[in-house]
Amino acid sequence: MVKGGLALKRIGVVTSGGDAPGMNAAIRAVARAAYCAGVDALGFEHGWDGLIHNRARSLGPREVGGILELGGTVLQTCRCPQFKDVASQKKAAETLAANKVDGLVVIGGDGSFRGALALSKLTPAKIVGIPATIDNDVYGTDETIGFDTAINTAIGDIDKIRDTAVSLDRVFIVEVMGRQRGFLAAMIGLTVGAELILVPEVPYSVAGVINAIREHEASGKRSGIIVAAEGVGGAREIAEAIERDLGLEARISILGYAQRGGNPTARSRYLACEFGNHAVDLLLGGSGGRAVVLRDGRVTDISLEESCSGTKELDLELLTMARCLSR
Amino acid sequence: MVKGGLALKRIGVVTSGGDAPGMNAAIRAVARAAYCAGVDALGFEHGWDGLIHNRARSLGPREVGGILELGGTVLQTCRCPQFKDVASQKKAAETLAANKVDGLVVIGGDGSFRGALALSKLTPAKIVGIPATIDNDVYGTDETIGFDTAINTAIGDIDKIRDTAVSLDRVFIVEVMGRQRGFLAAMIGLTVGAELILVPEVPYSVAGVINAIREHEASGKRSGIIVAAEGVGGAREIAEAIERDLGLEARISILGYAQRGGNPTARSRYLACEFGNHAVDLLLGGSGGRAVVLRDGRVTDISLEESCSGTKELDLELLTMARCLSR
Amino acid sequence: MVKGGLALKRIGVVTSGGDAPGMNAAIRAVARAAYCAGVDALGFEHGWDGLIHNRARSLGPREVGGILELGGTVLQTCRCPQFKDVASQKKAAETLAANKVDGLVVIGGDGSFRGALALSKLTPAKIVGIPATIDNDVYGTDETIGFDTAINTAIGDIDKIRDTAVSLDRVFIVEVMGRQRGFLAAMIGLTVGAELILVPEVPYSVAGVINAIREHEASGKRSGIIVAAEGVGGAREIAEAIERDLGLEARISILGYAQRGGNPTARSRYLACEFGNHAVDLLLGGSGGRAVVLRDGRVTDISLEESCSGTKELDLELLTMARCLSR
Amino acid sequence: MVKGGLALKRIGVVTSGGDAPGMNAAIRAVARAAYCAGVDALGFEHGWDGLIHNRARSLGPREVGGILELGGTVLQTCRCPQFKDVASQKKAAETLAANKVDGLVVIGGDGSFRGALALSKLTPAKIVGIPATIDNDVYGTDETIGFDTAINTAIGDIDKIRDTAVSLDRVFIVEVMGRQRGFLAAMIGLTVGAELILVPEVPYSVAGVINAIREHEASGKRSGIIVAAEGVGGAREIAEAIERDLGLEARISILGYAQRGGNPTARSRYLACEFGNHAVDLLLGGSGGRAVVLRDGRVTDISLEESCSGTKELDLELLTMARCLSR
Repeated sequence: MVKGGLALKRIGVVTSGGDAPGMNAAIRAVARAAYCAGVDALGFEHGWDGLIHNRARSLGPREVGGILELGGTVLQTCRCPQFKDVASQKKAAETLAANKVDGLVVIGGDGSFRGALALSKLTPAKIVGIPATIDNDVYGTDETIGFDTAINTAIGDIDKIRDTAVSLDRVFIVEVMGRQRGFLAAMIGLTVGAELILVPEVPYSVAGVINAIREHEASGKRSGIIVAAEGVGGAREIAEAIERDLGLEARISILGYAQRGGNPTARSRYLACEFGNHAVDLLLGGSGGRAVVLRDGRVTDISLEESCSGTKELDLELLTMARCLSR
Repeated sequence: MVKGGLALKRIGVVTSGGDAPGMNAAIRAVARAAYCAGVDALGFEHGWDGLIHNRARSLGPREVGGILELGGTVLQTCRCPQFKDVASQKKAAETLAANKVDGLVVIGGDGSFRGALALSKLTPAKIVGIPATIDNDVYGTDETIGFDTAINTAIGDIDKIRDTAVSLDRVFIVEVMGRQRGFLAAMIGLTVGAELILVPEVPYSVAGVINAIREHEASGKRSGIIVAAEGVGGAREIAEAIERDLGLEARISILGYAQRGGNPTARSRYLACEFGNHAVDLLLGGSGGRAVVLRDGRVTDISLEESCSGTKELDLELLTMARCLSR
Repeated sequence: MVKGGLALKRIGVVTSGGDAPGMNAAIRAVARAAYCAGVDALGFEHGWDGLIHNRARSLGPREVGGILELGGTVLQTCRCPQFKDVASQKKAAETLAANKVDGLVVIGGDGSFRGALALSKLTPAKIVGIPATIDNDVYGTDETIGFDTAINTAIGDIDKIRDTAVSLDRVFIVEVMGRQRGFLAAMIGLTVGAELILVPEVPYSVAGVINAIREHEASGKRSGIIVAAEGVGGAREIAEAIERDLGLEARISILGYAQRGGNPTARSRYLACEFGNHAVDLLLGGSGGRAVVLRDGRVTDISLEESCSGTKELDLELLTMARCLSR
Repeated sequence: MVKGGLALKRIGVVTSGGDAPGMNAAIRAVARAAYCAGVDALGFEHGWDGLIHNRARSLGPREVGGILELGGTVLQTCRCPQFKDVASQKKAAETLAANKVDGLVVIGGDGSFRGALALSKLTPAKIVGIPATIDNDVYGTDETIGFDTAINTAIGDIDKIRDTAVSLDRVFIVEVMGRQRGFLAAMIGLTVGAELILVPEVPYSVAGVINAIREHEASGKRSGIIVAAEGVGGAREIAEAIERDLGLEARISILGYAQRGGNPTARSRYLACEFGNHAVDLLLGGSGGRAVVLRDGRVTDISLEESCSGTKELDLELLTMARCLSR
């Protein structure tokens, strides 16, 4: 229980930002790992809001039972722009003190990590971040909790759309989540065998899209799937160009919010277990200001500072490979 | 083999209109039932187009192996507006004659049935329709092949969206397929426990929607799902009113084309088996101009004429029950 | 609220016997329909046990929120052999009186219905049964809550097993649930395209099985699926005969308990909604001693007496059709 | 096309041993990567058998279309004990020469790798192995194609079994695949939150099992899931001890062959793409006698010799963590 410093007494847990499948598995992992170490766990409800307004509830081992496989977050979450104000952050620090919380685990994406970093400067409590977002856009970690589930949900849907594409000789432009980044689009596109993948990181032209589809047609394909991150935009324009220039039927399908929810896959659960366990280990060891990450296939940690300072790069080799394998 | 008339020699099969999960199971059922009766089966490719342009292929028992569980249609299909012209229909009749097809099974929705009816007046071949469309809007049958699969695909997605709705206290307006009719929306809404269901058959007002959500809020709900048929429209306006008048976050999600595809459910496969088998029985018995239907829980048939003349009613009791059960 | 008699005040709900997907949807339907009629709902926990030992809890509209899509039963259930004793039944009657329950909905299979019938003779409370069992073996109803879900779970698994069967040219004997009856096996076998279906209602011989597989082989199949109800037995013997007499690899796979659980399908949820709603309607109308049933595609009811007196027949035509369609 | 040596002309592909989801994705990846490099691809059917008896077919880019998402292997596979004989291996070498195959990709498990290594000594063709088996027991790679799919299939089933366990206060002993090794059992057990995990690598005693369940009971749990690798055995004995010593109902469920099949998950498809692509890169670069592996989260390769010489260790920390997190 006491590793490398003063004994920790109570670990707080908060889920923040957009929900991601596996957040509940991570809550459970933190609460149970705390319990195994003889430390209390306390959940704050509704994201930063619960820290600002002191809405907490006990997270004993039975209270986190039966949630491992549930999507969403039983602690609820929220987009909380006011947490950018120092006043709100101070209130959160007071809430931690009032609840005698000396370690806090923040489960969320990069916005949540920035909040965690800011808060860490106003409280003696140690803070550790666990990356959980379907977008996989947290710097410093190869993967986030929820990413694998979102991909699998999307490919399940696109496999179905493929049935219609093939049956009707159509081209579908399928918009997947990702306003800023193409991590989801790249992996989804690769694993459904998309004829073309469009990501915000790589500019495209309608003429280029038409050429790509024309090449596929020349090689004998009569239907196709274009996977596009929502941040790319232009789906309508592309569809019209396909119909006009190639004489093919084109349709748009927006996968939407289903990608955010659902029972987490094994991998999202696995990462949630590992990350939650490691977060508690860090707190027990007296470390704070850390972000748990997956790096080189191993669970480790970096400073929150580092995680908040970088921008994760999309591996463009994935797109090159996807292009080759879809020929 | 010879029941009540001249021996049938060759049964043609065509899938027409939008694809529906279970079409392949129906193709297999027709081909295998024909085989069991010692009759050849011949598939026409790409909907009416294949009949107009005489593109056919054999459907022997091994050639329909392994397709029972596949979405889409291995014969492909198309929207074929030119089949409304008598000239096209005559060409189709010639194709039937050229291929010595004396019985034709048309698998599709109400538009396909109207084509089948028109064709039946120009050919000596007997024609039987099998209702297959996710929309369930074919008059005379309680259910169509594909309807059950589309509902299950949709509820799988909406169950996931519910995770996010609950986690973030949000209202989601989920648009499901159904441009003209609310069969899908009603069953989907009922079975996901939607807080509100909007169908084209029942006019709505934004004020009414706001009232409905307000009542749910008053009874303690902090999130909600509105299931709306796409033909209802106005999702944007509703979302804005919810945010403005109720102060709740609202989001729109359009389920899209995934509802059309995917492995058919047991029920869609079951109907496909029964319908295909019954269609062949009708042809073997010398009947033509019939539509296979499910009525009062039993597989039977009505005239194509009757099927094309009526408009199927949506059971509004479903909506009343759904409203009560979602309170 | 008051239909055809004295006003009902409180409806009890109990789930009994084996669990079935959709039981929760039925609990919700009963509780919400009661709420809409201004009647209290009270759940008894752990099957008849909760009635014998008076373990009850309120089932207000919010208390049944979020359970529609969950497998199992939040009220829990049990196999309760002691409920065959009149002493136990009397205790249950006393519990109903002590809780002022004047209407009871029993959700379960035929054993539960027999218990309900016995109890109905010892209490003034009106009792209505809702058929819920994956086995579909309740007399008087075409379908039970949970049957459709179990079939879909099984065909999902068998579609996977088919991958291996085809990849390795193997015959698989897949045992599905059904100790006494073949309803599940017949529908599963038909909808996966099983090469052979074995049910307890139809005696089989190993020689007959061998002949059937040999015919499939002769027609060009190199792998196969035999779906057998667990009550049929003999899987080992069949497998050995296939290996010995046909020189084919044979394997056995027992699908097991996963068939009992899982999120209910749309159809299981739909039946749960309709059945729960109708059960409350019956009680509100002063009817007791009834079983809700699906007959000729419509929800209606028969006497519990009748339901308990008959034995449901398996439609052997299904097997004939399945045999033809798998050729 | 020509990297570091003589130009490669034709790449052969064979799937061998048990099938694994993602094998088709790997076949497609090899064939398409070869195509992109201007090299022919040729598939050998039915595992080593096809090499021994020279049964090959072209794997052009269109011929591997539509298989990415299919379970099993379109090339089929077999257990082929006779390939341990040098005579058979020599025949395979002759087949390679006869077909002018100068590079061969062997997709399979450790047995297949041993065959590949043996063959590599008898042929000038370069041979590269791709690890594909649900068992994840190939030395040198952190993960094999198919492992992630098998886990997800199993946890889907066990989540369902959990519904019944909880509804009936039962303990289930769920046997998952793994005759010799516990990789599957460990990951499945962790990600379903099993109360106990039994693997062949760690001896167990019935008394120890009873103690573990008793502790769970003491902490308030009334049901449980024991995940056991099939190689552990003793399920019957454990079940009886639980019923006898703890007075709890216990049931056994064997997940069986469904774990082998089904559409590959995103991760299995991803690994298949990467591994297939890397295998072709190796061959194009003139390398042979290599095994593609995932190491430290990256795709790389080791010698076939090394891969065949070691025994992969199960990370027992996983079990420790699982034990803590299930409390």
